[in-house]
Amino acid sequence: MKVNRDDTIVALATAQGSAAIAIVRLSGSQAIALAESFFYAPGGQTQKRLQDKAGYTVHFGVLKYDNTIIDEVLISLFKAPHSYTGQDSVEISCHGSTYIQQQLLQLFLQHGARMAEPGEFTMRAFLNGKLDLSQAEAVADLIASNSAVSHQVAMQQMRGGFSSKIKVLRDHLINFASLIELELDFSEEDVEFADRSDLKQLVASISGVLQKLLHSFEVGNVIKNGIPVAIVGKPNAGKSTLLNVLLDDDRAIVSEIPGTTRDVIEDEMVIDGVLFRFMDTAGIRTTTDVIEQIGVNKAFEVIKKSAIVIYLFDAHELSSGDLQLEIDLLKEHIGTSQLVIAANKIDIENEADLQAEFANFEEVLYLSAKTQKNTEQLKQRLVSLFDSRTVNATETIVTNARHADSLRKAYDALQNVTRGLNEQLAGDLLALDIRYALDELGSIVGAVTNADLLESIFTRFCIGK
Amino acid sequence: MKVNRDDTIVALATAQGSAAIAIVRLSGSQAIALAESFFYAPGGQTQKRLQDKAGYTVHFGVLKYDNTIIDEVLISLFKAPHSYTGQDSVEISCHGSTYIQQQLLQLFLQHGARMAEPGEFTMRAFLNGKLDLSQAEAVADLIASNSAVSHQVAMQQMRGGFSSKIKVLRDHLINFASLIELELDFSEEDVEFADRSDLKQLVASISGVLQKLLHSFEVGNVIKNGIPVAIVGKPNAGKSTLLNVLLDDDRAIVSEIPGTTRDVIEDEMVIDGVLFRFMDTAGIRTTTDVIEQIGVNKAFEVIKKSAIVIYLFDAHELSSGDLQLEIDLLKEHIGTSQLVIAANKIDIENEADLQAEFANFEEVLYLSAKTQKNTEQLKQRLVSLFDSRTVNATETIVTNARHADSLRKAYDALQNVTRGLNEQLAGDLLALDIRYALDELGSIVGAVTNADLLESIFTRFCIGK
Repeated sequence: MKVNRDDTIVALATAQGSAAIAIVRLSGSQAIALAESFFYAPGGQTQKRLQDKAGYTVHFGVLKYDNTIIDEVLISLFKAPHSYTGQDSVEISCHGSTYIQQQLLQLFLQHGARMAEPGEFTMRAFLNGKLDLSQAEAVADLIASNSAVSHQVAMQQMRGGFSSKIKVLRDHLINFASLIELELDFSEEDVEFADRSDLKQLVASISGVLQKLLHSFEVGNVIKNGIPVAIVGKPNAGKSTLLNVLLDDDRAIVSEIPGTTRDVIEDEMVIDGVLFRFMDTAGIRTTTDVIEQIGVNKAFEVIKKSAIVIYLFDAHELSSGDLQLEIDLLKEHIGTSQLVIAANKIDIENEADLQAEFANFEEVLYLSAKTQKNTEQLKQRLVSLFDSRTVNATETIVTNARHADSLRKAYDALQNVTRGLNEQLAGDLLALDIRYALDELGSIVGAVTNADLLESIFTRFCIGK
Repeated sequence: MKVNRDDTIVALATAQGSAAIAIVRLSGSQAIALAESFFYAPGGQTQKRLQDKAGYTVHFGVLKYDNTIIDEVLISLFKAPHSYTGQDSVEISCHGSTYIQQQLLQLFLQHGARMAEPGEFTMRAFLNGKLDLSQAEAVADLIASNSAVSHQVAMQQMRGGFSSKIKVLRDHLINFASLIELELDFSEEDVEFADRSDLKQLVASISGVLQKLLHSFEVGNVIKNGIPVAIVGKPNAGKSTLLNVLLDDDRAIVSEIPGTTRDVIEDEMVIDGVLFRFMDTAGIRTTTDVIEQIGVNKAFEVIKKSAIVIYLFDAHELSSGDLQLEIDLLKEHIGTSQLVIAANKIDIENEADLQAEFANFEEVLYLSAKTQKNTEQLKQRLVSLFDSRTVNATETIVTNARHADSLRKAYDALQNVTRGLNEQLAGDLLALDIRYALDELGSIVGAVTNADLLESIFTRFCIGK
């Protein structure tokens, strides 16, 4: 990653492919001058000024090079520091032909701009203090968001919700750290500027917040990647039919809006704004057949990775006693996952009988995957299981593994501080651990950073952001 | 296609998929009010005004609905009649998440906007007199353009080059038509306001222009769809290797610019800004084997559709005499296509010998598809064949089948006028044919139009344009 932050970068900011409009984006000290040098009034004869125009204005004209008009364009002007990157920037809205996109990029590349690296616009925004690091990371999450919940969490983080929480913790710690470091200057005199019991209380309180944030990462991870749901049951239980019902339904929602259909990943779906990730499995009953046992073992592996297990059975095939055996077996492997038991192949004629058969399993859902009877109820159950475990969208949720790692290290360092305080360690030893915790918290928002960290963060961005 | 032209339409204007930025576009009487109703200052608390702001300005804020911030956005404002459509319009630049795109579309759809039909923004521009019909059609061509030449032709048409040519022809004819129609009012008095010899000359001159435009359509069609090139030769001649060399080279050019790679259609390539469409064929030698004969017949069909035929042969396998036989056979089927003869599998050791062997075929190109020796020369030959047949980018070229059809009908009507003049037909009969020619010319630019025509034109647009 280039460290020069003033040279002019260019990239296509909109998605690949031909469309009505595409945006080519330039940022850097020469961005406006460069665009201006090819910019003419609509007639194509008179050159048009951009540099003396105000920011947040739009200008219509043509981009012309070598006597050839490349396109009629709208140029939006942003002047440092009042732009996304904090630098002079232009956004050129052109006709969305792939040919024109290429021509414009080539034009600017051949005249002093260079191709932006992934995330470089946002990195510049960070380097120019427009966003802190966790906010910058949330921009990538926001673009990747594919459900109401992941969108809300990323939006809150981008808008500084998480950052301000971290900032409060750091400010308290910094205050104590400086008092303790002051003591070191007077170490001959054996004074204590920092009240040890106050410090202990503060460390305990911060540790509590960190623990809560760390716990939220479990949820955050699930929000970002989808809640893993294992569908288990015997081969004839109707698992695939159920899966199709759930997924087809989702596809229908997506395609309600013409022009917005996206590639739907076969085994994911969004219900009420929550992303679920479904995993089909082989049957789970005990067997002496080795080949079948492999399939069963795989099913247990899937169950281990899931947050929710749907056990689906054919209500005509299974006796109440067998169901009990199956559930008992399942519960040995289910760990902390939530269990949903669903009786399949229910219809009006047999519903009452079957409900009587399984009357002592209160939690059984009676449905028919084929006729979609009560499948809506199943979805609501899934959503409620997620809700009850987890999410309050206004609460801060950590979704980023890097943040979780730093929070964990800061937490561990603070545990050392607590131990040190209990053992009445000298201030200089306490100061080391406090400093370490501060650095880790600082790295989350980018108050403490280095080139490698920035590179690893911004390379996961798309180009043009 | 809806005919209401004032209601507010909305669409995604940028390409599908997640990216740094996406643009949602609104046009219609309520476009600005609708955007304003959800638009808040960045803090999310204070509502922001848009309706009292000037056109061609950009506004930063958040779109919020039901207490949920959907995104931080930039809104560009355009006020009637100074917009693309001629109506009040806004372009909302949001984070390019597919989720956010959908949310914004749904927000506006649920509050009074409707989804734009394909091409509806441009149709409104036409209906509001911002573009004539041939210019509007060129917008779609421009977006679809994939080579320098198709781009230039579409750009010239969009900027009114073709329209102004048609307009001049119509103005002259209208002048005469009104004089002749004036005669009809005085028909009892047998006067001639319109000088017949002047009219004859005018019709001849206009017919000449129309003929030239009609001829340009042959070229225009080829520019738009690519120049069809048949590669023929025996199975071991190295046709596929040659094709790969040509196509791979093209791919390398495309991928020079990170982020601009597009789906390359396997058998198309752009050389020096000209689009070629390659068609591989089976061998072409005469055979008594029925199955093989079918393949050969197919090869002849491909040759018939091509503008250029490359005959490739293995220089080690074919004698000079056999080559003559092959070429003679080929020429029976080649029609007006240009022929390029290429000797393959040439290297330094054998080059002189082989050139001697085929010395009496002056036009043979000596190359090696495998080592890419002289393949560049082959490409230049293809480009020069195109140039010599065809194109002067400043000349008007008809690329649209609808236009060609109207030009042909106008031309035929004018031939009737000429015949009528020679036979000294009465003015009212002449007037009929002149009127017909005028209508056909008028339909090209949309001076004469109807709903069906508009529908058939604009439905081939992408949504959002």
